[in-house]
Amino acid sequence: MKTTIREKIQISLKNPVLIEGLPGLGLVGRIAARYLIKQLKAEQLARLYSPHFPYYVVVNKKGHARLLRGDFYYWKNPQGNDLLLFTGDSQAQTIEGQYEIADTILNFAEKQKVKAIITLGGYRKEASNTPKVIATATDSAILTKAIEAEAILSPPGNPIVGTAGLLVGMAKFKKIPALCLLGETRGYLPDPGAAKSILLVLQKMLNLRVSLDAINKEIKKSNKILERMRQIQERRETYTKKMQQGEKNKTTYIS
Amino acid sequence: MKTTIREKIQISLKNPVLIEGLPGLGLVGRIAARYLIKQLKAEQLARLYSPHFPYYVVVNKKGHARLLRGDFYYWKNPQGNDLLLFTGDSQAQTIEGQYEIADTILNFAEKQKVKAIITLGGYRKEASNTPKVIATATDSAILTKAIEAEAILSPPGNPIVGTAGLLVGMAKFKKIPALCLLGETRGYLPDPGAAKSILLVLQKMLNLRVSLDAINKEIKKSNKILERMRQIQERRETYTKKMQQGEKNKTTYIS
Amino acid sequence: MKTTIREKIQISLKNPVLIEGLPGLGLVGRIAARYLIKQLKAEQLARLYSPHFPYYVVVNKKGHARLLRGDFYYWKNPQGNDLLLFTGDSQAQTIEGQYEIADTILNFAEKQKVKAIITLGGYRKEASNTPKVIATATDSAILTKAIEAEAILSPPGNPIVGTAGLLVGMAKFKKIPALCLLGETRGYLPDPGAAKSILLVLQKMLNLRVSLDAINKEIKKSNKILERMRQIQERRETYTKKMQQGEKNKTTYIS
Amino acid sequence: MKTTIREKIQISLKNPVLIEGLPGLGLVGRIAARYLIKQLKAEQLARLYSPHFPYYVVVNKKGHARLLRGDFYYWKNPQGNDLLLFTGDSQAQTIEGQYEIADTILNFAEKQKVKAIITLGGYRKEASNTPKVIATATDSAILTKAIEAEAILSPPGNPIVGTAGLLVGMAKFKKIPALCLLGETRGYLPDPGAAKSILLVLQKMLNLRVSLDAINKEIKKSNKILERMRQIQERRETYTKKMQQGEKNKTTYIS
Repeated sequence: MKTTIREKIQISLKNPVLIEGLPGLGLVGRIAARYLIKQLKAEQLARLYSPHFPYYVVVNKKGHARLLRGDFYYWKNPQGNDLLLFTGDSQAQTIEGQYEIADTILNFAEKQKVKAIITLGGYRKEASNTPKVIATATDSAILTKAIEAEAILSPPGNPIVGTAGLLVGMAKFKKIPALCLLGETRGYLPDPGAAKSILLVLQKMLNLRVSLDAINKEIKKSNKILERMRQIQERRETYTKKMQQGEKNKTTYIS
Repeated sequence: MKTTIREKIQISLKNPVLIEGLPGLGLVGRIAARYLIKQLKAEQLARLYSPHFPYYVVVNKKGHARLLRGDFYYWKNPQGNDLLLFTGDSQAQTIEGQYEIADTILNFAEKQKVKAIITLGGYRKEASNTPKVIATATDSAILTKAIEAEAILSPPGNPIVGTAGLLVGMAKFKKIPALCLLGETRGYLPDPGAAKSILLVLQKMLNLRVSLDAINKEIKKSNKILERMRQIQERRETYTKKMQQGEKNKTTYIS
Repeated sequence: MKTTIREKIQISLKNPVLIEGLPGLGLVGRIAARYLIKQLKAEQLARLYSPHFPYYVVVNKKGHARLLRGDFYYWKNPQGNDLLLFTGDSQAQTIEGQYEIADTILNFAEKQKVKAIITLGGYRKEASNTPKVIATATDSAILTKAIEAEAILSPPGNPIVGTAGLLVGMAKFKKIPALCLLGETRGYLPDPGAAKSILLVLQKMLNLRVSLDAINKEIKKSNKILERMRQIQERRETYTKKMQQGEKNKTTYIS
Repeated sequence: MKTTIREKIQISLKNPVLIEGLPGLGLVGRIAARYLIKQLKAEQLARLYSPHFPYYVVVNKKGHARLLRGDFYYWKNPQGNDLLLFTGDSQAQTIEGQYEIADTILNFAEKQKVKAIITLGGYRKEASNTPKVIATATDSAILTKAIEAEAILSPPGNPIVGTAGLLVGMAKFKKIPALCLLGETRGYLPDPGAAKSILLVLQKMLNLRVSLDAINKEIKKSNKILERMRQIQERRETYTKKMQQGEKNKTTYIS
């Protein structure tokens, strides 16, 4: 078995842009890609299977088991570029697998006559109230568009690991301009806030209109969890300090 | 060398069902598959060799050395579906190997015109007097049959690792319905009890009649071992408690 | 680059027997194979290169660098089977590599019309004055010959790891009888004694006459080293005991 | 995706010598190769991409992302052999990858009708004021030239790991003479001093004239850093000794 794409339907897309978001730091790329798929009611186009994904199946709510996979969706845009969206369960587990999967996606993108590729992911940053979006690309033209849409230029030296990076690196071989957008995130937990910041850039770049109500709710939920965790942490620290103080005092009394 | 199947005889089977049981959690799948092979006096059909098995040979009682392998057996059922049974020494040692071996088994199943696949394994559960059988499948039709035979539906999210999982996940590509049955087991030791619970489900599903005397004996032996281990553990704990009590008492006396 | 054999000369051998000895436990197999090559003045026939060997080159006395490799030698036997001898620098470093190299050797053996294969190695055993030779084989005919030559039958379950094992396991596919001879060794150090015990069996089996003077010298040297190590160990233990005694006595005095 | 070379221009070189320097011990090989490329104003010829390089892209100063790669440069020598220079971001990450990349480079060298190969690297040595250059080769002719240029013969047994080693080992298959030059280095930090010692040998061997001003500056900088590190270390040791002395004294007072 090699990495293969199984097409569910044949379709012709109008100047399609491929948007990729797989699991990674803070799940930022995957949250953003899946949000677009849901909000745009994008439809299934094809599935990617690979012997470089982990070797297990997962069970869904109906009790059905399925392989780990990548999913291609498409969305017919009445006003601009059609979208080809890619998300999935997992990154490849081996070095060669990472290259093989990126190569397979690019061959499919070429076949679908994709005009540009935008890969999504997270960018580690300790504290940030409004997470920025870091951009890097194959060339200045597409990069400029991202900067105009309020992304900021990636610092030099920054390594972008996994499919989001390799797709951009390898897109050059296909002469497809490619852009990588990374939302700043602490990366500890799934981070809808970082995903939203990416969505804002994408909307501007691609003239999309997607309701952000649902992701705003996710962010509120996520913030509540973070707040609760912060409180627990704080209480623990206060308690620890008191204990230590208490013990110091005791020691003083006794001696 | 690639993963290959070497056929020992050519045979035509009647609506065969493939039952797979390789080593895994509590050896449940392998114990169940081998028990069927022995009780049904199933006969050798083919062997599977793979460069993804561990790189050693094992010596048998006659002093002959052989590669690690998988074994296909068949059983001509006078009253229903013929059986194709698969068991073996080992799972593949690499990710790609896991996919390659599952792929090779499925190609062989397709060639043999297999009508359904049932894979067997263990399901980790801490304490259970009568181990239940957890079921997941490619589709609702075969899953319903398992539920009717008193298996219970797998919870969602449950990952099924190794050949038992991949065969079900990849069976879809061949349009063969596939079912996975997992016997609840603590998984520490070979668990004939969990294997028996699977055999009971299989008997109902496939209208098989297999004497359970031999496996009942195995279960008794296994229970005795467990009972002895529990007693040793208990004595150790009692002893430890006494020692600790004794020391407390001593301390009291002294102060 | 794949595993390949580069032939230095073309030659036709008379009913050749392939003897294999690569580095392994106590270097037993390699010492025995190289001893035969040297004593018989066997000549170079071919070399095996593989991308599964470690990725470095070694420098010889003239300052020339060379890849790690396997070496085939041949010896024209005036009175019996010609010999094809295989030794080398290293075992394969990956699972698939182990199978690939064994496969490549067997294809070459088939091409050379090899009539039997004998693989050599070490067998871990704590203490043994006269190391025995453990035998396992593809079939009873060749195994019986080894037993007649004073090898003893391998216990069942014994796993034989690496090329010495796989060659025997995979020889069946080529219908070449194959035998594995393992000299008992503690395995800590290169063990010429275990290698000699294998040479004695080989001489009887193959009607060879090879002077054992040189290996006897090696054994003496090796025994001296072992004796010295034993003395150092003993002195250390005596010293430790005295120290502990001394401390006990002190304690007694003080209290 | 396999390891591939993408040629940027087609060119015919006059008796070219291939000089290779990838990252390794003290970055010696890469520093030397890149220094030559810069000083000679060598021009880009081709790029090597491989699925055995780490799976990330790096961002340059303009915010453009690119795959890790190897780079071939050429230099038209008005007075002697043209040069083909190879450097890159990384070594292969897998054993097979190491062999595959060396093989790909050699095929390209053969195509370019390379007359000799010189690989560069570091050689671990604890302390050395003027680092020597250790040489090993495929044959005595090229080795003698290196010795005449004041390299010294490699000690036997010395393993040369990675592309610098494999290129020499595998060059024999192409019948291209190959030499490996290793600059003595402690290997902790990038070591321009060791690189310079290699450049001196190369200049003599190849009749090159390259200004050493820039590397002399690098060496001064590097020596200052080392000197500062040595001082910090020394102060730490002095301080530790004083503390220990102080404590001894205290102990004396108290008792």
